Amino acid sequence: MANTLTLNDGVAEFLAALNRRSLDHVFFVACGGSLSIMYPAKFMLDQYSATLTSDVYNSEEFCRRAPRTLSSRTLVILCSMTGTTRETVRAAAFSGSEGALTIGMTCDTGSPLARECEFVVGFETPYTSGVPIDAASSNYARIYQIVLGLVRRYDGLDKIRPLLGSLAKLQSVIDSAKCTFAALFGDYAPRFAKEPVIYTVASGASFGAAYSFAICVLMEMQWIDSHPIHANEFFHGPFEVVDRDRAFILLKGLDSTRPLEERAERFLRRFSSEEKVLVLDAGTLNLDGIAPEFRGNLAPLIFFDTLWHFAYMVADLRNHPMLEGRRYMKVLKDY
Amino acid sequence: MANTLTLNDGVAEFLAALNRRSLDHVFFVACGGSLSIMYPAKFMLDQYSATLTSDVYNSEEFCRRAPRTLSSRTLVILCSMTGTTRETVRAAAFSGSEGALTIGMTCDTGSPLARECEFVVGFETPYTSGVPIDAASSNYARIYQIVLGLVRRYDGLDKIRPLLGSLAKLQSVIDSAKCTFAALFGDYAPRFAKEPVIYTVASGASFGAAYSFAICVLMEMQWIDSHPIHANEFFHGPFEVVDRDRAFILLKGLDSTRPLEERAERFLRRFSSEEKVLVLDAGTLNLDGIAPEFRGNLAPLIFFDTLWHFAYMVADLRNHPMLEGRRYMKVLKDY
Repeated sequence: MANTLTLNDGVAEFLAALNRRSLDHVFFVACGGSLSIMYPAKFMLDQYSATLTSDVYNSEEFCRRAPRTLSSRTLVILCSMTGTTRETVRAAAFSGSEGALTIGMTCDTGSPLARECEFVVGFETPYTSGVPIDAASSNYARIYQIVLGLVRRYDGLDKIRPLLGSLAKLQSVIDSAKCTFAALFGDYAPRFAKEPVIYTVASGASFGAAYSFAICVLMEMQWIDSHPIHANEFFHGPFEVVDRDRAFILLKGLDSTRPLEERAERFLRRFSSEEKVLVLDAGTLNLDGIAPEFRGNLAPLIFFDTLWHFAYMVADLRNHPMLEGRRYMKVLKDY
Repeated sequence: MANTLTLNDGVAEFLAALNRRSLDHVFFVACGGSLSIMYPAKFMLDQYSATLTSDVYNSEEFCRRAPRTLSSRTLVILCSMTGTTRETVRAAAFSGSEGALTIGMTCDTGSPLARECEFVVGFETPYTSGVPIDAASSNYARIYQIVLGLVRRYDGLDKIRPLLGSLAKLQSVIDSAKCTFAALFGDYAPRFAKEPVIYTVASGASFGAAYSFAICVLMEMQWIDSHPIHANEFFHGPFEVVDRDRAFILLKGLDSTRPLEERAERFLRRFSSEEKVLVLDAGTLNLDGIAPEFRGNLAPLIFFDTLWHFAYMVADLRNHPMLEGRRYMKVLKDY
């Protein structure tokens, strides 16, 4: 899959249909971990499109808010791994009833979300299948194809080939990043396993990775108090909690907002302790094969995938299993 | 001021200039507490405008991201209490250089932000002036006037009179709310003063109030670990930290997303403890004089103003002063 360098079939079918459609706005709609990929998707659309504005909304917020800009000239991109997230299925139905074009991303192309959407794009994940996947088949890889497809159609700017080429190389870059970060993770895991609160900090394309690691991994799977902090918002309130004892994970990406993360790093290095601040710097990695223009966009996939490995190390040390360690989600019948 | 029921002069001047201007997008841009009012402003624009799309961005994120949709057809609304927030002043300059229309909200109409913007709207705050103000002169009151002015101009829907009538009554409603919540605050303050972590939960128009209370009050002024959690995102990760010991402040507003907050409340009442969950329900307040259509929009002002009072009670019990208790902000010369 990763070396064929062709658009995903679902994406291609969707893009072909756009030739007959006028659009001026995109809603990125999902919940939790699936919502987290919408932030970098919007970042990419902001970078490349002068014609399409967009919003990122939690699915239920979207339905209840019912933005008046939702119309037949809007596209709603939805995502749910299982395709069964009730809020997201409802959001797809609501969007359709308002005449919007809908495209649903899910691992199960026969799921309720898939049935509710006009177009369906499948993706793979190791969380539901249990087996390793190639990052080129992930939700990130698919939504970036959708976004650059929109840019080609509505802005006349075709960046799809370098994106596909970069995605084809991504898994080997991630595997190599795991090696690069291994010593760092081995050093920090025993300390972070004892932390009651761990903050994650990032900006730009990487904010979604900080968000999902905080809410879906640390809080959901490890019951550790956490908060994703935007790297500049950090200086407008949150940084007052910094002392020698607070633990932080800082993501230093490669997009245009990197200076924000560098400033947060300087502050943390000055007022926190070396051993309490885990900095993942994409600038230290071998990114051969990834087109320079997409390094900022792909860095969050590297962060999230490698941090997932770090989370398992922490989970082992805490004797708190990851997916099986939840007490409410997929355990309670209803809530 | 509150009973004159007229548009603020700065807002009126700005709106008059719009007659000659085509706009199709709005950027709401600020940092920290000033950014927090942009969320409810966008909520109101989403509710009422079918023609104007919008984005909410931290000022530095906005500059570095440099969205391609920024153009002479966009309006950038900026806010900084002192008018000296460097990131926001830069964002105003950047917006102007791209041909966008700029309007700056600040308490100091001679400040750098004011000088950098095409239009200026002053507001009052008790934090810089030290004296009580009428809520009708606050940043919220001003930005809602701007938003409904945009709606009148670009959507042909005039809701300004009922808004002004509601704002005129707001301070008395807030004063009465302080009495209604007094017993609750007296009950919870001694317990919350001992909590190491306090989460805030809200959705819709109230999310900004939850955001600012978490990052600008609990974290910044009390060094308490915190996190604003969107009431539906809560169920997609964060709720796994809930046990009988975690402390939560839940805001139950009156906008269309109230069912999200009610669902979070049911969960918290079931799995947390009565004494650890402080629920502020705008539905229990006397809102006479506030037009029903604006109760959801004005609830966050009531929450924030009353919670500010609660914060001082907690601060006294912790012997940690509020504004004077900061160690970095306005203390360090540079960071």
